[in-house]
Amino acid sequence: MSGDRRTPKWNDLEVVAGNGLLDRRVFLAGGAAFAAAITGYTLSEPVAAQQLVDAPWSTTAGLPIPDYGVPSRFEKLVARTLSNPSGAPRTQHARTPHQLLTGTFTPNGLHFVISHSGNPDIDPGTHRLVVHGMVKRPLSFTLDALGRYPMQSRMTFIECGGNSAPLFSREPVQGTAQALHGLGSCAEWTGVMLSTLLEEAGVDPAATWLVAEGADSLAVSRSVPIAKAMDDAMIALYQNGERLRPGNGYPMRLLLPGWEGNMNVKWLRRIKLVDMPAMSYYESRTYAPILPNGKAYQFYFLQEIKSFITHPSPGLSLTGPGVYEISGIAYSGNGRIAKVMVTADGGTSWAQAALQEPVHPKAFTRFRVPWRWDGTPAVLQSRAWDEAGNVQPTRAQIIAQRGETATAVTNAAAFPSQHYNGPTSWAVGPGGDVTHVYA
Amino acid sequence: MSGDRRTPKWNDLEVVAGNGLLDRRVFLAGGAAFAAAITGYTLSEPVAAQQLVDAPWSTTAGLPIPDYGVPSRFEKLVARTLSNPSGAPRTQHARTPHQLLTGTFTPNGLHFVISHSGNPDIDPGTHRLVVHGMVKRPLSFTLDALGRYPMQSRMTFIECGGNSAPLFSREPVQGTAQALHGLGSCAEWTGVMLSTLLEEAGVDPAATWLVAEGADSLAVSRSVPIAKAMDDAMIALYQNGERLRPGNGYPMRLLLPGWEGNMNVKWLRRIKLVDMPAMSYYESRTYAPILPNGKAYQFYFLQEIKSFITHPSPGLSLTGPGVYEISGIAYSGNGRIAKVMVTADGGTSWAQAALQEPVHPKAFTRFRVPWRWDGTPAVLQSRAWDEAGNVQPTRAQIIAQRGETATAVTNAAAFPSQHYNGPTSWAVGPGGDVTHVYA
Repeated sequence: MSGDRRTPKWNDLEVVAGNGLLDRRVFLAGGAAFAAAITGYTLSEPVAAQQLVDAPWSTTAGLPIPDYGVPSRFEKLVARTLSNPSGAPRTQHARTPHQLLTGTFTPNGLHFVISHSGNPDIDPGTHRLVVHGMVKRPLSFTLDALGRYPMQSRMTFIECGGNSAPLFSREPVQGTAQALHGLGSCAEWTGVMLSTLLEEAGVDPAATWLVAEGADSLAVSRSVPIAKAMDDAMIALYQNGERLRPGNGYPMRLLLPGWEGNMNVKWLRRIKLVDMPAMSYYESRTYAPILPNGKAYQFYFLQEIKSFITHPSPGLSLTGPGVYEISGIAYSGNGRIAKVMVTADGGTSWAQAALQEPVHPKAFTRFRVPWRWDGTPAVLQSRAWDEAGNVQPTRAQIIAQRGETATAVTNAAAFPSQHYNGPTSWAVGPGGDVTHVYA
Repeated sequence: MSGDRRTPKWNDLEVVAGNGLLDRRVFLAGGAAFAAAITGYTLSEPVAAQQLVDAPWSTTAGLPIPDYGVPSRFEKLVARTLSNPSGAPRTQHARTPHQLLTGTFTPNGLHFVISHSGNPDIDPGTHRLVVHGMVKRPLSFTLDALGRYPMQSRMTFIECGGNSAPLFSREPVQGTAQALHGLGSCAEWTGVMLSTLLEEAGVDPAATWLVAEGADSLAVSRSVPIAKAMDDAMIALYQNGERLRPGNGYPMRLLLPGWEGNMNVKWLRRIKLVDMPAMSYYESRTYAPILPNGKAYQFYFLQEIKSFITHPSPGLSLTGPGVYEISGIAYSGNGRIAKVMVTADGGTSWAQAALQEPVHPKAFTRFRVPWRWDGTPAVLQSRAWDEAGNVQPTRAQIIAQRGETATAVTNAAAFPSQHYNGPTSWAVGPGGDVTHVYA
C-alpha cells in the first residue's frame, strides 16, 4: 500500500460488493476519496476550538517512566485468556486476543503459549544444546557460543495444530476471535540456521530424521525430517528483538516456519539425528487424530492457508450505521499470501482486500476492506489464497474429510480437532452485535 | 538474505578486509561454508551423548503462564537506563539497550522515551483529538471513531535529535551503545493517515503549517509543514500490534517518519492549521542550537543517515580469538538503506555487510558481517549509504560545521548536541575488551 500514490477516480471507490463493501483502493486514494466515501456518516464531531478543555492529566505532572515499560492501566483487558491460571499439573493454554490487536505481528507479552508442564525456569548460563546421534562430531553449545554464529531474522507465525478446533463443532461455538483462533501468533525470530550447526556436526548420509527434545519436565519431543532441518529451520534465540519469553522457549527453541506449533520445540536441549521417526507421545497421540476412514492423521506438519476477520468480531459491537474498517489476518505455511477476498453478504458477492505490505512468507498478513454498513443484518467472511495457488477450503469440505464433533472441542485429545483452516463467519445483527455463525 | 540459495565457492568466503572480516556471502552459502570458515576456532564443545544430564528445571513442574507475559528473571539487566528514575519535575530519559537486543525493531517495553513532564495517565474514553484552525470544518475525534477509519501499518524509527550527543565531545565518552545511541528505537506503528483527517476537515489553501500539541501538562507543541502532513504523517494508535505505551503517547501520537523525535508529538490532543510556524519552546530553544557561524540550527527536521555497531560494543567483551558476528543498525530518514560497509582496521579496508531483508524505508535495518578475530587489537566502525545516495559524514566533517564540546554533553540544551550522524568506532583490546575511540 506504500509507494503507489496514484489517485483513483471517485468512480473506483463505489461499493464493489453487496452490503456496502467499498473498493480497497480507497486506501491509495488519500483522504479526499475517503471523505467522499463517508459522506452522510460522519465519524467526527464538529467542534469549536474554544471547546478545548484541559483534562486532569493536562494540569498535573505525569508518572515516572519505568525501566521496562508496561501497557496503560486502561488496557488491562488486553490480555491472554488462560485455561489453567493456577498452573495445576496439566496443560496450560494462553490465547492471543486478536480482536484487540492490529498490525502484522503479536507483541511478546501476548504471544500464545501452550505448555504441558508449565514454564521451566531455565538458567541460561548452564543450559546446553547438544547435537548428537548420527553425526561425525557430537557437539554441545552454550547460549553465548550460539550468539557468535551468523544469525538471521524472519517474521513467521507459529500456530498450534489444534487452533480453531471449536469450528469442528456441529453448532457454531460462541466466542471471540481469541477463544476460537487464539492459539496462533506471529513474531520476528532471530537466531542461527539449524543447517549451520548440522554441517558443523557432519550428518551421516543415512540420517533421515532428527528428534528435537525440550528441557521442560515432560521433555516434549518431536521428529522432524532432515529436509526441513536443512531448509529453513532455525535455532531461535530472540523474539521481536529481545530474548525469547519463558513461555515461548527461553533461552532457545526450534523454529520450523509454517509447521505445526508443537514441533517448534521449546526450551530446546538436544537434537538427535536418527534414521526413523521416534514415534514420540505428541506425534503418536495428540497430533495424530483418527480420521473417519479409520486412518491416523499423522505426520501432517503443514499449517495450511487460513484467514479470519478480527475487526469487527464477537465482543466488538458496531455502534450504529456508517463506515467501518473490516480487518483481519491471513497466513499460509506454504509461503506468501497472494489475495484475500471478503464478503459482507454471506458469500454472495466478494470484494478484494488491501494487503499490508511488505507481505512476508509464512507470516501474518493484515488485510483491510472499508465498509459502509447500512444497519441491516450482514454476514462477514474472509477467504485467502497463497502464492502457491492454495485457497482455504470450505468448512463443508473439511468436515466431509475429517468429521465433526457434536459439541465444542475443549481439548486437543478430542477428535477431530486438528488443522482447521476453513473460513470463519461473523453475523452482524441489526443492533450491531456480532455472533459466530456457519455460512 | 532469503531466497538466494546458490552456494558460493569456498574462495568467495575468504577474508575480504583487514583484521579478519569475512565475505558476507557466508550467510548465503549455508552451513558448510561457515563450518570451513571457523576451522581452527571451534565454538562448540565436543560431547558424548551420555553426558546429557537433567537440570533442576527438567525434573520439576514449571511455573504458571501469566496473562501478560514478561521476560525471564535472568534478563533483568535488559532494561532501559533512566536519567530521572524518581520522576523529579524535570525531563526523564529512558534509553534503549541496543547492545542487548538484535533483530530489526525494538520491543515496546524497551522503546526509548523522553518525557518533559512524566507520562500523563490518560483515560482513552474521554481523550479527544481536535483538528481546527484554518479548516472549513473543525472536527473532534474519539479514539473509537479513529478506529473506524482506514488504517495502515509501517515500520519506522523514531530518534531524538539529541541522540548520540556524546559524540560531539572532544574526547570519546566511554559508554555502551545504550548510553551513546539509546535515544532512538524502531517499531511498527498502525493508525490513520493524517491526510485523511485533513481532507475531511477541508484545509484552507492559505494554511502552510500545522501546530501539533500534546495533552501532557507541558502541552509540548511543534510546528509541522503541511507538505509532510499530507505525505506520510500518521495518527498512530497502535505500536507493535498493541495500543501505544504510556511513554510513547498513549492513546495516540503524531508520527512523522524520519523526522526529529520531538516533532512526533505524543498524547496528541490537537492539530491547528496555521500560516506560519508557532515558534514554540522546543523548536525555538532546545532543538535550535547555535552554530559556530552564529546562526540557529532551526527547523532542521530530518534524521539523516546513520549506523552503529551493536555487537560487539562496550560491555560485550570478546572471550578469546575466533569467529564472531559483527552486527549493528543502520537507518535513514530519507528512505531505505542501500549499503553498509564495515571496517575492522580503523578504516584502512572495508567489507560489505549483509542487510536483513526486507529493508523498510525510514526503519532500522540490521546489518551483519562474519569476523574471524585473531586476538590482536582492532578498531571496528560502520558506514551506511541510503537509496538516495546519502552517506554518513565523517566525525571531522560534522565537527567542522557544528563545533564540538570540551566535555561530555549531558543535556540537550548544551550546544552542539543535535543530529550527530557520523560514525562510531569501537576499539577491541588484546584481552577482548571494547572501548569507544575516535578513528
